[in-house]
Amino acid sequence: MEEASVIYGKNVTLGQHVSLEPGVRIGDNVTIGNFVVVKSGTQIGDNVQIGDLCVLGKVPFHNKKVALKPSTELNPLVIGDHVKIGSEVVIYRGVTLEYDVLVGDMASIRERVSVGESSIIGRNVIVEPRTVIGRRVTIQTSSYITSDMLIEDQVFIGPCCSTSNDKYMGLGNYKHQGPVIKKHARIGNNATLLPGVIIGEHAVVGAGAVITKDVPEGQTFVGNPGRLLARGGSSIE
Amino acid sequence: MEEASVIYGKNVTLGQHVSLEPGVRIGDNVTIGNFVVVKSGTQIGDNVQIGDLCVLGKVPFHNKKVALKPSTELNPLVIGDHVKIGSEVVIYRGVTLEYDVLVGDMASIRERVSVGESSIIGRNVIVEPRTVIGRRVTIQTSSYITSDMLIEDQVFIGPCCSTSNDKYMGLGNYKHQGPVIKKHARIGNNATLLPGVIIGEHAVVGAGAVITKDVPEGQTFVGNPGRLLARGGSSIE
Amino acid sequence: MEEASVIYGKNVTLGQHVSLEPGVRIGDNVTIGNFVVVKSGTQIGDNVQIGDLCVLGKVPFHNKKVALKPSTELNPLVIGDHVKIGSEVVIYRGVTLEYDVLVGDMASIRERVSVGESSIIGRNVIVEPRTVIGRRVTIQTSSYITSDMLIEDQVFIGPCCSTSNDKYMGLGNYKHQGPVIKKHARIGNNATLLPGVIIGEHAVVGAGAVITKDVPEGQTFVGNPGRLLARGGSSIE
Repeated sequence: MEEASVIYGKNVTLGQHVSLEPGVRIGDNVTIGNFVVVKSGTQIGDNVQIGDLCVLGKVPFHNKKVALKPSTELNPLVIGDHVKIGSEVVIYRGVTLEYDVLVGDMASIRERVSVGESSIIGRNVIVEPRTVIGRRVTIQTSSYITSDMLIEDQVFIGPCCSTSNDKYMGLGNYKHQGPVIKKHARIGNNATLLPGVIIGEHAVVGAGAVITKDVPEGQTFVGNPGRLLARGGSSIE
Repeated sequence: MEEASVIYGKNVTLGQHVSLEPGVRIGDNVTIGNFVVVKSGTQIGDNVQIGDLCVLGKVPFHNKKVALKPSTELNPLVIGDHVKIGSEVVIYRGVTLEYDVLVGDMASIRERVSVGESSIIGRNVIVEPRTVIGRRVTIQTSSYITSDMLIEDQVFIGPCCSTSNDKYMGLGNYKHQGPVIKKHARIGNNATLLPGVIIGEHAVVGAGAVITKDVPEGQTFVGNPGRLLARGGSSIE
Repeated sequence: MEEASVIYGKNVTLGQHVSLEPGVRIGDNVTIGNFVVVKSGTQIGDNVQIGDLCVLGKVPFHNKKVALKPSTELNPLVIGDHVKIGSEVVIYRGVTLEYDVLVGDMASIRERVSVGESSIIGRNVIVEPRTVIGRRVTIQTSSYITSDMLIEDQVFIGPCCSTSNDKYMGLGNYKHQGPVIKKHARIGNNATLLPGVIIGEHAVVGAGAVITKDVPEGQTFVGNPGRLLARGGSSIE
């Protein structure tokens, strides 16, 4: 079909051995590295840079324990203008990356995730399905963002943070709920967030804290289990 | 040698630039993605799906500080029927993946590991040498499974868990022993297991817990250091 | 230009589809795997082994939130004699790997980092810019080494450790300072080090500890927040 061929903008630079599947659309001033796989239908905006050895627009698969919606429901991957994607990155079909998003090397983003303008998905960060990430969010290296999370604008998540969405750890077919992190909240490195906790606006979670209940707006929680930081003790932040 | 050529089943679909070394055997109805390296002797069953940019059947190397057994002792990688392997995965020679195993993107499995039927090795999970993983085990994203572990059937390991096997942290040439996790035990996200601890059947380790001693059958341990959860307190799970 | 072509030593073995940019220099007895990208100017010593699907000598990029020094200032990547590099590794321009360094699969090292003789950068380890790593250091699998750290000789860092350098978590344009880990110190798995802490010579940080202040020479700190280990309690190490 004519509409299924690859559409190139002006000034597109491709590395060696780039696999472009039918229906891919590439904007102007785009650079794509070597050994990159761009799956069918992926939409790449203007002024986008993509590193080497990436897979973009991947369709999920499953085994008997993980039932996923049919991939035919998924929209194509949409990569906005001025997005930069590192090397060895895997991004699924059904993802939207808004204007000026940065995705670091070795990061991976599953289906049905949206990432807002000028946000940073750090190196080796993994984002699970159906999570919504706002604008100017920073998620630092090696953090793990579970499914069904809401991360509002200008949230800061330090390196190696861990989140979860499954209160009973694989026991059944109940609803899973990831944490909610509200505007301007900040999470220290290697913090642990339990399923469904809400981190309030401008709240702070200390490095290494284990957050088992909601953190109110503007408060700082530290320790295991996470508790309100006593006044005067700021070094743990 | 005639026996060293690649043997193809029926209905094999290869992506672009797949490097198949001599002695590889591929079953029926197999799909292999782009830029995949399959090392010599690897055995791939029927109805197997393999993503892009993988290395399958890798031989370990070493420097002066890490002495490994000669790789010539290692059996070829064996990939069972109905196994699914994501993208950017590295699996070593000497591994066996049983029927219906799922290996997520960016996971890596070292030599002399076996993974039982219908188990899931999540994305970015790393498994070290000589660990035995049972059937219907779930190991979620970014968890680290050290060497010489035993993980029994139907264990659930949440995301970002960490295990270790070296009680004296690099001081000598004594025996290393990873944790043992017994049937149906469940481990919360970002938990830390120290060398050689035993997690009993149906035991639960809370998210973020640091487990320094054995957890008896059916008990729930939380905190740092991990202790028995007081009755009535279930939210930490 | 004549000087910009690739220079090969004796006995160089290249895999399929290796992308060698101008100015790359390869020593004697070097093996490079399949689908490897070696960026311009990279210097590879003698007796070096490089796995499949690597990117070597990458130039950093940035978006509006991360301002980096112009890459033109960066020296080429220098890979010393007898270095071994795994598969799916990304190493930036401006890095120096000394004699006999081992870099595991899926590791990544940013610009302006030096790694001393016979040190091990484990699988899936991420090292950020401007960190100095001494000789015979071991950094185990999946640990995260932030920027501006100093790791002295013969330090041992267990798996899944997390470090940070930003005391106020993204609030401004102040100086960032990573931890300092002095000679022979040992860090347990999944430990958390806060910005700027100093771990003294021969000190020990227990597995899962959260280190919010300096650990004096020879002392052992455990817990959250990390405190001096009471005498007689050694199992937590």
